[in-house]
Amino acid sequence: MPNIDVCFSPELLHLYDLKGKAVVAVDILRATSTMVTAFAEGAANIFPVMELEECRAFAGQGCLTAAERNGIKAEGFDLGNSPFGYMGGNVKGRNIAITTTNGTRAIRMSEEAKEIVIGAFLNLQAVADHLAELGLDVLVVCAGWKGQFNLEDTLFAGALAERLQDTFSSESDSTLAASYLYQTAKTDIVSFLRQSSHVRRLEHLEIHKDIEFCLRHDVYDVLPVWRHDRLLDLRFKEVES
Amino acid sequence: MPNIDVCFSPELLHLYDLKGKAVVAVDILRATSTMVTAFAEGAANIFPVMELEECRAFAGQGCLTAAERNGIKAEGFDLGNSPFGYMGGNVKGRNIAITTTNGTRAIRMSEEAKEIVIGAFLNLQAVADHLAELGLDVLVVCAGWKGQFNLEDTLFAGALAERLQDTFSSESDSTLAASYLYQTAKTDIVSFLRQSSHVRRLEHLEIHKDIEFCLRHDVYDVLPVWRHDRLLDLRFKEVES
Repeated sequence: MPNIDVCFSPELLHLYDLKGKAVVAVDILRATSTMVTAFAEGAANIFPVMELEECRAFAGQGCLTAAERNGIKAEGFDLGNSPFGYMGGNVKGRNIAITTTNGTRAIRMSEEAKEIVIGAFLNLQAVADHLAELGLDVLVVCAGWKGQFNLEDTLFAGALAERLQDTFSSESDSTLAASYLYQTAKTDIVSFLRQSSHVRRLEHLEIHKDIEFCLRHDVYDVLPVWRHDRLLDLRFKEVES
Repeated sequence: MPNIDVCFSPELLHLYDLKGKAVVAVDILRATSTMVTAFAEGAANIFPVMELEECRAFAGQGCLTAAERNGIKAEGFDLGNSPFGYMGGNVKGRNIAITTTNGTRAIRMSEEAKEIVIGAFLNLQAVADHLAELGLDVLVVCAGWKGQFNLEDTLFAGALAERLQDTFSSESDSTLAASYLYQTAKTDIVSFLRQSSHVRRLEHLEIHKDIEFCLRHDVYDVLPVWRHDRLLDLRFKEVES
């Protein structure tokens, strides 16, 4: 039986052996939720990059550019980190280069893994189904907030462990903690998270609508995965290749 | 109102500013529980050191030496890491040099703090009273298991946050998580922890009696604190100095 484990911060990633594993990179507020939304809205490829300048350079290749720092859209970029900014047809068929405070880091630091999947509550079941099909050991890599533990990514890990509970073992202390916290929170995650200083900091930025949206479960069946240098939606791209 | 925060692993300690804060170093299974027991049994000073050789060198100065690696007493030392090994009069009035897999590391990495207190369920209320009196911001530093998150240290952090809830703010995500987990676990912590692979690994080493003991609350009123190069029991030593 494969195992599901949870790494609470990219700062702890060096303690885990990623080889042969499936990593689920998660940054619920808001990088991975936004990426999932972008694919649901028809984006072609997403290039997650670490630095603002690297991101800006993609504009020359016809890419849309998206950048967030400290919760706010960085100046001079096409898009920010709100999923609502990717709705309405503006990203359909487009490539997007994106850099965010925490989320892109979790993805790029996981490149040793056999598979990297982008997870969010929005595509929770699609991720669970893909992991069950792969049958690899899973490590959920929480982006956290500037290296620190955060609740929303942890709750996602607990939700995923619940979906996989019949087919995956989950005995690590971090997975147990995530599972218990999700059981406590799941009837009203929005209220649960309202106590979090991190979420309150984001609410101060008036993204309450984003937060409610990012906590919705199973809205999309998209499946963003890492291939070589980009994310693509596995629903479509494996058929084409 | 001072704040209580929780650092889940020494590997995350660089993300926190310790200056001016009170650190509570915790390694429930079993370093800090054992240190608390040693002071309750009349130990004079405890020297927590990182390396086995450094620890062994203290024998020449008339110290008892104590060493644990991977849950087992290291060969050639007077004592291991079981609190029961410190009972019955053998440590009364003695100095002890101790090195353990995780616990001593959490202490020595926190030396920038204004105060370092050794916390365990065994002396929970004594620690809470001291912190309330100090009125400094508090960071609970969980020793974890080889850098990874563990449940028992987290539960201690949640228990301490509960004791301080009227006089300390606690809004960080890690403190909220620890508090929720403690509320879930507290009616039967032994059973709660039995799911943990880490605790199961220790039980395999036949230390079940230790585990039950280390989870008992408020058994001792000792208050081990860091002074210069050693731990001493604040109940006695500040009066003498």
